[in-house]
Amino acid sequence: MNLLEQTLATLRYILDSSSIVTGGAINPRHHTDWSHYAPACPGILLLPRTTEEVSKMLRICNTHKQPVVPQGGMTGLAGGGVPRAGDIALSLERMEGIEEIDPAAATMTVLAGTRLETIQQAAAEAGFLFPLNLGARGSCQIGGNIATNAGGNSVIRYGMTRDLVLGLEVVLADGRVLNLMNKMMKNNTGYDLKQCFIGSEGTLGVITRAVLKLHPLPGDVTTVLCAPADYSSAVRLLRTLQRKVGTPQAYEVMWPAFYRLGVDWSGQTAPLPDDKPIYVLFESTGSAEALEALLADAFETGDITDAVIASSHTQARQLWKIREATGEFPVRLKPLNFDISLPIGEIDAFIQDCQQHLDSRFPGHHTLYFGHIGDSNLHVTVDLNSVPEPAPVEALDELVYTAVGARKGSVSAEHGIGALKRDYLHHSVTPEALEVMRQLKQTFDPNGILNPGKVLG
Amino acid sequence: MNLLEQTLATLRYILDSSSIVTGGAINPRHHTDWSHYAPACPGILLLPRTTEEVSKMLRICNTHKQPVVPQGGMTGLAGGGVPRAGDIALSLERMEGIEEIDPAAATMTVLAGTRLETIQQAAAEAGFLFPLNLGARGSCQIGGNIATNAGGNSVIRYGMTRDLVLGLEVVLADGRVLNLMNKMMKNNTGYDLKQCFIGSEGTLGVITRAVLKLHPLPGDVTTVLCAPADYSSAVRLLRTLQRKVGTPQAYEVMWPAFYRLGVDWSGQTAPLPDDKPIYVLFESTGSAEALEALLADAFETGDITDAVIASSHTQARQLWKIREATGEFPVRLKPLNFDISLPIGEIDAFIQDCQQHLDSRFPGHHTLYFGHIGDSNLHVTVDLNSVPEPAPVEALDELVYTAVGARKGSVSAEHGIGALKRDYLHHSVTPEALEVMRQLKQTFDPNGILNPGKVLG
Repeated sequence: MNLLEQTLATLRYILDSSSIVTGGAINPRHHTDWSHYAPACPGILLLPRTTEEVSKMLRICNTHKQPVVPQGGMTGLAGGGVPRAGDIALSLERMEGIEEIDPAAATMTVLAGTRLETIQQAAAEAGFLFPLNLGARGSCQIGGNIATNAGGNSVIRYGMTRDLVLGLEVVLADGRVLNLMNKMMKNNTGYDLKQCFIGSEGTLGVITRAVLKLHPLPGDVTTVLCAPADYSSAVRLLRTLQRKVGTPQAYEVMWPAFYRLGVDWSGQTAPLPDDKPIYVLFESTGSAEALEALLADAFETGDITDAVIASSHTQARQLWKIREATGEFPVRLKPLNFDISLPIGEIDAFIQDCQQHLDSRFPGHHTLYFGHIGDSNLHVTVDLNSVPEPAPVEALDELVYTAVGARKGSVSAEHGIGALKRDYLHHSVTPEALEVMRQLKQTFDPNGILNPGKVLG
Repeated sequence: MNLLEQTLATLRYILDSSSIVTGGAINPRHHTDWSHYAPACPGILLLPRTTEEVSKMLRICNTHKQPVVPQGGMTGLAGGGVPRAGDIALSLERMEGIEEIDPAAATMTVLAGTRLETIQQAAAEAGFLFPLNLGARGSCQIGGNIATNAGGNSVIRYGMTRDLVLGLEVVLADGRVLNLMNKMMKNNTGYDLKQCFIGSEGTLGVITRAVLKLHPLPGDVTTVLCAPADYSSAVRLLRTLQRKVGTPQAYEVMWPAFYRLGVDWSGQTAPLPDDKPIYVLFESTGSAEALEALLADAFETGDITDAVIASSHTQARQLWKIREATGEFPVRLKPLNFDISLPIGEIDAFIQDCQQHLDSRFPGHHTLYFGHIGDSNLHVTVDLNSVPEPAPVEALDELVYTAVGARKGSVSAEHGIGALKRDYLHHSVTPEALEVMRQLKQTFDPNGILNPGKVLG
């Protein structure tokens, strides 16, 4: 018997057979085609219903030194949940449900397999906002969101997933259950262990439950599309907006090539002329009068040269359609997407660096720049159709990530490292920090069974 | 030669002699009298000027297995910076200064020994708010604030110190320098190692530099004192305020005995009658009209029975004087202060539990309840003059912390564990979590030289 068969025999002996699925049922579960990365289907999928079952499963795998890949909704973009040949997949999908909403504490207690959309809806029904919001909301699970410290559009106002988690229950590699459930904003009782697991992509433990922080529902939203004079004007506008009107719910910057393509694909007449150097789409929940006064001032000082305030929900939706062109990237382009971050003051200079390197290495390339700059996050998309040479992905990765490293940026803003960015981590992380990360991994998972090959390799 | 003398000899050989002070210069540095805890002065005080010096010092101490106590402004309330006999103290006070303010990124880069007040003032001069605010602002240092994850009055709006730190430089026990400096809100490149050091009270590493997150300066503040019908009305008022006007800058709840004493000590006529069941002092930066409408509604529904809106800065200061009675506790009482947190919905029930236990064990006790309930933090102060039996501190500690544990509260909200609360940690932390904390300590500091006797003991 090989390792996988030995582990399977023990699992079958200890566990209810309905929680074990065998026979290549895994790859069709992915929302993205990962066949280039993981050609073989894993042999076993585990489907625990309780924390106790997760604990038993991990204890068995740990004893056999059998690699395990924790899985959420399989919507990740860095391959963190993709099993390799010989891995066992452990999906949290049956551990689904909201255990409690505590309106006094403004918290929600959930099982890890609960879908994000379910959580958003339950929060709204209770008169609260759970502000994490991603395109994958209908499929992704909160356990995966926490394990990858997911970002999204509202980070500028509400922070990353890390900032929305008050407590966790985690099963360690050896099956120990760590109860770190907590409803309090202030709790300084020793090391804040939950922080180790948030964003560690299932390599240090398996998240089974969480206490989430709920926010007040926001008031009416005003949607504005405007054209700042240049990038520094866009940053200045953001800071003034925060000071005078309140931090916006979203602050999306689009460079011209992206704007033109967004207008074109959405089939509308351009709401602002398409020859501006930069565009910002933002949502404010502050006073409408204060916002109008601020925009008038910004015209006066020359920080913006044009603006549209959406006068109806329909018009606001039309403006958002421009930004949501990204949803059509997979259909209309052959996109290579970068999720990076940079100090906010460096983003424009980075784009110039990047464009210059691309121009000289890949003449004729078609590259789009856009992002949530208020939280330092830039997205870069290169259309591989415009780069006709064979297998340019590694060259493009190296080019972009080297430029990121040169400006002290981060090779992963919100998507994580997973399998795809592992080899580029050194552009943003020092050798000493990598060494300490390896020490942490060794402490929590001495046999290296949890999601091997991910994050640190 | 004993251990201390051996270490001193090596330190003198390697380092500039001006960075080594010997001979009992330590205890007078404390802002609190710790003589009951640490009767002996440490023999050596180290005063590094650079990260490199900190690194050399720790490398030497680690080689000799010599215990080291990192020190900031020595204003902590849990004894985290107090040396024991035979410990070396390492003060960061010479590593002082602001390295950079980046207005585009809204960040400030500082050395660990920089005083909080210096940082607050520099932020304000640059048009930003650094929202961490404590009574000790003139003496405490940012390194200590980060190492203890300090709280303060503005946590409800801006979070704990943890939420205000984007990057750190840390020297590990063996002298390795960990550069985790980062200006980006979004950065998912592997494990977020800085989280390990924030709140670990110098037991896992010595913080030498930090990147802080700056906030926009708030607009005009309205100060309100009101009397909710009961505790649940006070919580409901908070949630409505957050939804309709915006999260307040402060939301301070006072129970009647505290209110009466605050009015009395401040020498003013009671702004609200002193027979109400509960009082809330809050500061709103939202629209004044929205706030007035909300208060009118709250009268209507019966959630509040009385309220004063400060009509001037002077009147606002008068209202705050009631809450600031705490500043006179050490002079007018013999206070035993508890800094605890509880799920917000449990705070009132906890007070009833606690009062009942105190009544039966210490009849005639004089106990005050007040806190920042919006962030789950309750302060309880027992006047030891009202508890005449000898040495009641341990009995009171045990009584209060047991009641906290029974309602899943935390024995330390914002002051940390240090030396004083170590033995009560088990009321809020499971044995499994304590075991994992010890594993982390072992990983970062295998010789146990960093602040031994603190946090985990």
